Amino acid sequence: MNRIFRVNMKDLTCKIEEVPEAWAGLGGRGLTSTIVAAEVPPTCHPLGPNNKLVFAPGLLTGTPAAQSGRMSAGAKSPLTGGIKESNAGGTSAQQFAKLGIKAMIIEDQPEAGKWYELHVNNDGVTFHDASALKGMQNFDVIDAMEAKYNPKIGVCSIGIPGEERLMAANISVKDPDHKIRSHGRGGLGAVMGSKNIKVITIDDSEGKKVEIADKDKFRAAAKVFAKAMLDHPVTGEGLPIYGTNVLINILNEAGGLPTKNFLYGSCEHHDKVSGETMHDVIASRPNGHTKHGCHAGCIIQCSQVYTDDKGEYITSGFEYETVWGLGINCMIESLDDCARIDNAMDNIGIDSIEGAVLIAVAMEAGVIPWGDGKETLRVMNEEIGKATPLGRILGNGTKSVGEAYGLTRVPVVKGQGIPAYDPRSVKGIGITYATSTMGADHTAGYSIATNILQVGGHIDPLQKEGQVELSRNLSIATASVDSTGMCIFIAFPALDIPECLPALIDMINARYGISLTGDDVVELGKYILKTEKAFNDAAGFTNADDRLPEFFEYEPIPPHNVVWDFSGEEIDEFWNF
Amino acid sequence: MNRIFRVNMKDLTCKIEEVPEAWAGLGGRGLTSTIVAAEVPPTCHPLGPNNKLVFAPGLLTGTPAAQSGRMSAGAKSPLTGGIKESNAGGTSAQQFAKLGIKAMIIEDQPEAGKWYELHVNNDGVTFHDASALKGMQNFDVIDAMEAKYNPKIGVCSIGIPGEERLMAANISVKDPDHKIRSHGRGGLGAVMGSKNIKVITIDDSEGKKVEIADKDKFRAAAKVFAKAMLDHPVTGEGLPIYGTNVLINILNEAGGLPTKNFLYGSCEHHDKVSGETMHDVIASRPNGHTKHGCHAGCIIQCSQVYTDDKGEYITSGFEYETVWGLGINCMIESLDDCARIDNAMDNIGIDSIEGAVLIAVAMEAGVIPWGDGKETLRVMNEEIGKATPLGRILGNGTKSVGEAYGLTRVPVVKGQGIPAYDPRSVKGIGITYATSTMGADHTAGYSIATNILQVGGHIDPLQKEGQVELSRNLSIATASVDSTGMCIFIAFPALDIPECLPALIDMINARYGISLTGDDVVELGKYILKTEKAFNDAAGFTNADDRLPEFFEYEPIPPHNVVWDFSGEEIDEFWNF
Repeated sequence: MNRIFRVNMKDLTCKIEEVPEAWAGLGGRGLTSTIVAAEVPPTCHPLGPNNKLVFAPGLLTGTPAAQSGRMSAGAKSPLTGGIKESNAGGTSAQQFAKLGIKAMIIEDQPEAGKWYELHVNNDGVTFHDASALKGMQNFDVIDAMEAKYNPKIGVCSIGIPGEERLMAANISVKDPDHKIRSHGRGGLGAVMGSKNIKVITIDDSEGKKVEIADKDKFRAAAKVFAKAMLDHPVTGEGLPIYGTNVLINILNEAGGLPTKNFLYGSCEHHDKVSGETMHDVIASRPNGHTKHGCHAGCIIQCSQVYTDDKGEYITSGFEYETVWGLGINCMIESLDDCARIDNAMDNIGIDSIEGAVLIAVAMEAGVIPWGDGKETLRVMNEEIGKATPLGRILGNGTKSVGEAYGLTRVPVVKGQGIPAYDPRSVKGIGITYATSTMGADHTAGYSIATNILQVGGHIDPLQKEGQVELSRNLSIATASVDSTGMCIFIAFPALDIPECLPALIDMINARYGISLTGDDVVELGKYILKTEKAFNDAAGFTNADDRLPEFFEYEPIPPHNVVWDFSGEEIDEFWNF
Repeated sequence: MNRIFRVNMKDLTCKIEEVPEAWAGLGGRGLTSTIVAAEVPPTCHPLGPNNKLVFAPGLLTGTPAAQSGRMSAGAKSPLTGGIKESNAGGTSAQQFAKLGIKAMIIEDQPEAGKWYELHVNNDGVTFHDASALKGMQNFDVIDAMEAKYNPKIGVCSIGIPGEERLMAANISVKDPDHKIRSHGRGGLGAVMGSKNIKVITIDDSEGKKVEIADKDKFRAAAKVFAKAMLDHPVTGEGLPIYGTNVLINILNEAGGLPTKNFLYGSCEHHDKVSGETMHDVIASRPNGHTKHGCHAGCIIQCSQVYTDDKGEYITSGFEYETVWGLGINCMIESLDDCARIDNAMDNIGIDSIEGAVLIAVAMEAGVIPWGDGKETLRVMNEEIGKATPLGRILGNGTKSVGEAYGLTRVPVVKGQGIPAYDPRSVKGIGITYATSTMGADHTAGYSIATNILQVGGHIDPLQKEGQVELSRNLSIATASVDSTGMCIFIAFPALDIPECLPALIDMINARYGISLTGDDVVELGKYILKTEKAFNDAAGFTNADDRLPEFFEYEPIPPHNVVWDFSGEEIDEFWNF
């Protein structure tokens, strides 16, 4: 990966540039955040000509390393107003790596009204008229591009919400089975839409295998690393069998499962949508698969193929946060309904976390009856999917719904919806929500590991002690992991199995012929967080943005009847590094 | 004015408190901002239990001083997220003064679903069930309250947008002719709605005349002051004859009249809605009055009674900013249509500046055809007035419309719509828009006076030199004037006629038996601005919030083809005092 594709949407050109020395050791989030911080004016309008959309595969993407097939997308987020990195599986990351594209930077905007397909291949980027695709949702776009090219063509696209620049819009990425993974969070689909890019197609047929400096060393380390994945109970057992949805029963038991728009911490009907139930449902149905990978080389296989009782495809990539959001927080007790809504969100192209969190707020506002999966599905397809006035309110995210209906129980930080873990009863994740440069984001520093799953030790989720340090350490480590192209779940073995993290570092060293140490990796994480925070500060963020919504402070959550009780000063200690 | 009414909406009580010594010298904006800064947590949710709504008449309100009948309302604004003061004429200020109420502070929230009338009289506040008024717009509420009490009852009410906590909702105040003046800007109607207060009624029948310490001195100063009003060409001639709408032709000539959502700086059809035309239309119609005061004691009489050709009332308080917004910025060429829309905004209770600015953005989004007054009227009554999904998008203000439709030409600062003067071609007002603690607000430091009207000297509106100092001095002076209960237009004679400002200070001194100097008045203004800024800073504002929207920097405006070219550092010099 030795070149930068710099695309200008105003004059429809692509320059192929050498990789500046300062970017050579960066990939994924480290690279997208570095480029956005260096090239995007922090106070620019996120949907204006001065924002840039950056794609970068991780440092190890394209190698045979397990779990390494993820792409980062970065920009100034219209949802948070701050810097954004969102990474996804699918096929595009490995295609970019094969084409030697370290990053693609998309700048400026074309004339209003014209829509484009960017076609990426070994020679650069060409610009095709995409007016025929306007108004199409994602699955149709994928079909159209496969018909235009071939079934192996890479596709990153937006649906109508992205065209309409709605802030919950994601960028959808074709996976190996022609289904969809997503750069979900932060409204990057709206940024793509603001540049009038309907779809990016990737033809890697003239690409080459990624070069590895020391193949033997790489192979040896990759073996240790893969073994660690398989040996750890979470990545070797829990996730492969039940998917991420294994967490429903665990969080319910912990009293940290936000229910009915964060009114309660546990839910009577939890087992109707739990990972265990989901496993049995999938296993009992024709064409159902309880295991499925989001990218080639995944050995965890936490995804699935969820079918109906006739064996017709309903959805895949049906994650805990989405099931929680629909099944528990919106009280939709039918797992099939939840799966259909998940698929609709893939199809119209909105973040399935934001989408689920905002529907609960809409239910609180009386827009949709509590628990009504059929009406939620209709709202997804007919309102958000068609960008009606109601659809715009909803499609602009949780904060937008709260503002439209004048509500105060609106679970967002920096404008981004709070996912599936209540910060009052799982306090470590509350610190991550508050401090993340990305807005509320459980993956930014997954304190659930240590608070709930007892991975990397145990810190009582109901106590304040140790949470800031836990969140800080995990956030620093995560920023580094997000730069490797690795899926976030490698954190479980990395925290518990001593040889895992050294094997990861060995793979990077063998790939590039360098000699990073563990300390270097920590320094990289710190550098990324500080770069992102500096961007946000320059965009106008202060520590007042590093706070949870006020209602968490005065509404105790059952069953533990606890509130969010960190002072501002205590939260701000996160940044002492 | 020697007592504070402290109303608690949770336990439905009113405590009558003595005025703390620190508040004794304050009134109007100085007092509301001091109380909000002291008692409201800056990071609280503006619609939650911790926000407070404060009303305070000015220091001279209730005296016979000309122009002194204005009331300030203050709170944390849901529209800007910062501190807000919005002052209005009408009858309530003088009624509060007569009852000796220096401020009324409304705290906390009642049980959801219950609506209240607060009845204010000499004994305090009583709480009446107002469920029968829910869903009523303002004129009906006024009628209902006059029927319940008597035609002299004071009324401050909200329409359905206020009940629904929409951010453009204002607080409507009955004027001497049973029509409406407004605490317009910043969504204070939503704050009132969040406390489930549909209406405040004021019975001042047991009130007393305001005491004046030195009656002879007061009388002499009041005479000098009133003469200055009548002698100045703006307050003695321009405003009484043409109303504030005298400005259409002047700004058009200057190239500073934002047209078609800030695309152009002048407008071909300007004379169809100019003050001169409006004067002739009103004068030609039965029951039309070209002069009208918003409160007893007004001698400028810049308001009017605008009737149709049969003599039926259409509107009053039909201001330049509203006529500009509808007639020029939305391209609605029919003055009658504009007047009907103005009346609809009074009736449903939304800020007529925000309302006009947001409609232009909605026209840019394609929601309403350009120039369509009939459809705009329908949208006001049937969408915003009934809080439909589209009505919520619009009723939440200009920024909300821009976000819902993913636009970048969205004229707001700190979330509040930019009024009737283009900052690119009238640069002094741009500094005020950028720096005002209130969000974009022409009245916060009316640089138009010196840039365009040549009042208080002349500074070329197209040059940067001197604008920051001009805006700073005017902003400091305005903060003081807003504390007196005086209408802002006293600034014109105060800037040009040497004996005017001393007479104002003499009146304050004679009223309270004190001895303020001109320096004290300047210090008061500085104190107010700094208090407000400290609140905003603690709420999370930075100098990135003291900036104009980015499009002003890259879209030149004809006819001068100029952009907004102040650097951040230059703008920040505003705060060097």
